[in-house]
Amino acid sequence: MSALLTDLYQLTMLQGYHDCGMDETAVFEFFVRRLPPERGFLIAAGLEQALQFLENLKFSRSELEWLQKTGRFGDRFIASLESLRFTGDVHAMREGTIFFPNEPILRITAPIAQAQLVETRLINLLHFQTLIASKAARMVLAAPKKMLVDFGLRRAHGAEAGLLAARASFIAGFSGTATVEAGKEYDIPLFGTMAHSFVQAHDDEELAFEHFARAQPENAVLLIDTYDTEAAASKVVSLANRLKCCGIRIKGVRIDSGDLALHATQVRRILDEGGLNHATIFASGDLDEYRLGGMLAGGAPIDGFGIGTRMDTSSDRPYLDCAYKLVEYSGKPRRKRSEGKQTWPGRKQVYRSFDAAGRFEQDILTIEGDAHPGEPLIRQVMLGGRRLASAMPLAEIRAHAAWNLERLPASLRDLEGPYDYRVGMSQALIGLAGGMDQE
Amino acid sequence: MSALLTDLYQLTMLQGYHDCGMDETAVFEFFVRRLPPERGFLIAAGLEQALQFLENLKFSRSELEWLQKTGRFGDRFIASLESLRFTGDVHAMREGTIFFPNEPILRITAPIAQAQLVETRLINLLHFQTLIASKAARMVLAAPKKMLVDFGLRRAHGAEAGLLAARASFIAGFSGTATVEAGKEYDIPLFGTMAHSFVQAHDDEELAFEHFARAQPENAVLLIDTYDTEAAASKVVSLANRLKCCGIRIKGVRIDSGDLALHATQVRRILDEGGLNHATIFASGDLDEYRLGGMLAGGAPIDGFGIGTRMDTSSDRPYLDCAYKLVEYSGKPRRKRSEGKQTWPGRKQVYRSFDAAGRFEQDILTIEGDAHPGEPLIRQVMLGGRRLASAMPLAEIRAHAAWNLERLPASLRDLEGPYDYRVGMSQALIGLAGGMDQE
Repeated sequence: MSALLTDLYQLTMLQGYHDCGMDETAVFEFFVRRLPPERGFLIAAGLEQALQFLENLKFSRSELEWLQKTGRFGDRFIASLESLRFTGDVHAMREGTIFFPNEPILRITAPIAQAQLVETRLINLLHFQTLIASKAARMVLAAPKKMLVDFGLRRAHGAEAGLLAARASFIAGFSGTATVEAGKEYDIPLFGTMAHSFVQAHDDEELAFEHFARAQPENAVLLIDTYDTEAAASKVVSLANRLKCCGIRIKGVRIDSGDLALHATQVRRILDEGGLNHATIFASGDLDEYRLGGMLAGGAPIDGFGIGTRMDTSSDRPYLDCAYKLVEYSGKPRRKRSEGKQTWPGRKQVYRSFDAAGRFEQDILTIEGDAHPGEPLIRQVMLGGRRLASAMPLAEIRAHAAWNLERLPASLRDLEGPYDYRVGMSQALIGLAGGMDQE
Repeated sequence: MSALLTDLYQLTMLQGYHDCGMDETAVFEFFVRRLPPERGFLIAAGLEQALQFLENLKFSRSELEWLQKTGRFGDRFIASLESLRFTGDVHAMREGTIFFPNEPILRITAPIAQAQLVETRLINLLHFQTLIASKAARMVLAAPKKMLVDFGLRRAHGAEAGLLAARASFIAGFSGTATVEAGKEYDIPLFGTMAHSFVQAHDDEELAFEHFARAQPENAVLLIDTYDTEAAASKVVSLANRLKCCGIRIKGVRIDSGDLALHATQVRRILDEGGLNHATIFASGDLDEYRLGGMLAGGAPIDGFGIGTRMDTSSDRPYLDCAYKLVEYSGKPRRKRSEGKQTWPGRKQVYRSFDAAGRFEQDILTIEGDAHPGEPLIRQVMLGGRRLASAMPLAEIRAHAAWNLERLPASLRDLEGPYDYRVGMSQALIGLAGGMDQE
């Protein structure tokens, strides 16, 4: 991604730092200020893309020429950008880790120009994947052991949103995605059925089903709600019996409209009576964690769900109140005191302790070097612009998220809230902030 | 963008069409089913990117090799994809046109495999830019004659969302964006101020202001809410007087926290009393059309607004209920009858009539060829895979949107609704749909 994928003010500030010779080490941290009432926890995601961005940061010659033509910047400053690379350190929580407000999930330690320039894209990457992984995790909790598939590319906000939503929801526990490019790019399992247009393009619905089943003799999931859902289910039974002799097996059906739970119950009976006990029922259409929870509580015989728009846009809360803030410059802690937006100064660490059942009990937010009981969640992942380890496989990140979700206190697993989890501020951190306020 | 940026089911359906020899012409239309209660109209946007996508559609060799390795598709089918290009026709509303539910803004007429394959990305492009242009237009209506600047890249859903939100909001009437890459890519005016970190990195706030002003001697907009907003405004006055002799002029200040209207009033007084009547006040922080309307109704002396997250994510309604549906195949109109999701069959046209004051009076949705009074809104833009005209300049699209917004009935300009605009269905369309239902 271009280094120009940033806010103009990053470049004007860099010109300012350049002109007055400010090039000391700055420390920035990315965190979420507060949770929306509909969220009890967040899942950290996006670190891998953030590290790739930092590793590849550079201005191309044509970008620098374009910057020069804008007339906004000095020649010596633009020349200095030519050699700009990211040479700093990164500390972070592992992707898939559950976290809470004020806890940094990423820390950048670098010469101030580098650390400043990368703000916009780092927020852009970490915010979105964290938003989606956290939303998707609620669906996983609402429908344990069900197959959940990301169907959201079409209404995701652009191409990258669709691809990264597939990744983030897979981390949170989804079984896979319909987005082919995400399957190729991230090796996420692909799922797909058929669209209404395939049925509509045929003059006869059963013939459409047959054509599709012959083209996908092992994987055919037939969409049965184009005209009359139950009538179509009966056609599936008749077709399945006709095609059995050719070794073609109908894998399942999909229902995409109407009262999904009611249709599923009726369709299940039709399939079972027709000998298609193995055929699964897949449902889709405006689903989210609340609807999943409601349908499953009512015992709807649905085996899997395609979840699109409401997950890919995190529709009830399409953004988080997150920030990337300077916490230290030139060895001195820094603090912003704007109304309602005060920040905690200094490089931080989070210690998490667990109860006897292995569930999260409380977190302590403190300054680096101030040890507390519990597991420290922030580790160094990059030194001098180079990774300390190769990229973590996505399956491992997903397993780490599952491990985290298992250890979530019961009160935070509930869909409705209100949520309460204790993040204590250490005496060392409170003392540091208080001392700065008195200065 | 890769042709694999699509849903798996498009490819499995293509395999089905291929295997049974279905290659007749299909007609699909993209439209919005219904408006959310918070929207009285939509602005069509994204056509340019849609046409670019169609012009460049092809599978690369490595993509085909990857598809083959998935084991899901037949060899002859994959071989057929190698020569797949978009060779169809496109009819569309001009970008910047206001439209209403059920009115198609894009029609694709092409061999069914092509028309089917492009569904996902076409929706992805048209949905998002239309969503954002429509949200941004509400802000333009709430703050007429104010400078509105897109600040949203960081919390937009990925890189493409940030870039396209800059474009869509500029179409709707924003003055520009902070996103540098959008300035370069779309030639949109760039705006920027400074961040809190620049102030925090200095031990002294006034020195930070001075360094920034010296680096941007004509464009410095100083952020004054890092510690104490009014105290910082007084520092701006003292600095401006000191720097006047060096030919440096403070352009304005930005306030990003607290009660923006109250601070702006106090800061305006401080600036005016200090002789800085020319300096503008710019406000930002969690803004949307409701907050803009409220502040301006109260007479807040604010000259411009930076609007980020709530515009770039269309936060109150982060998606539209839109669809891309088959309306004709092999010369026969087609109709989906799923519960709550019935579609209107056939190729359509929209005629818009105007009242004596030049405002929109009503629209008629009908089938192509059934002429009605008023202006037909859908025109052919691509024939046989080639554009009929070169890309429309963004400034022209923006002017077209402004022309549309001027002609909006007063009831639709209101922020609160309820909204009501008459889209009548012609007898010809009703007859076509009714005849199909009887079959």
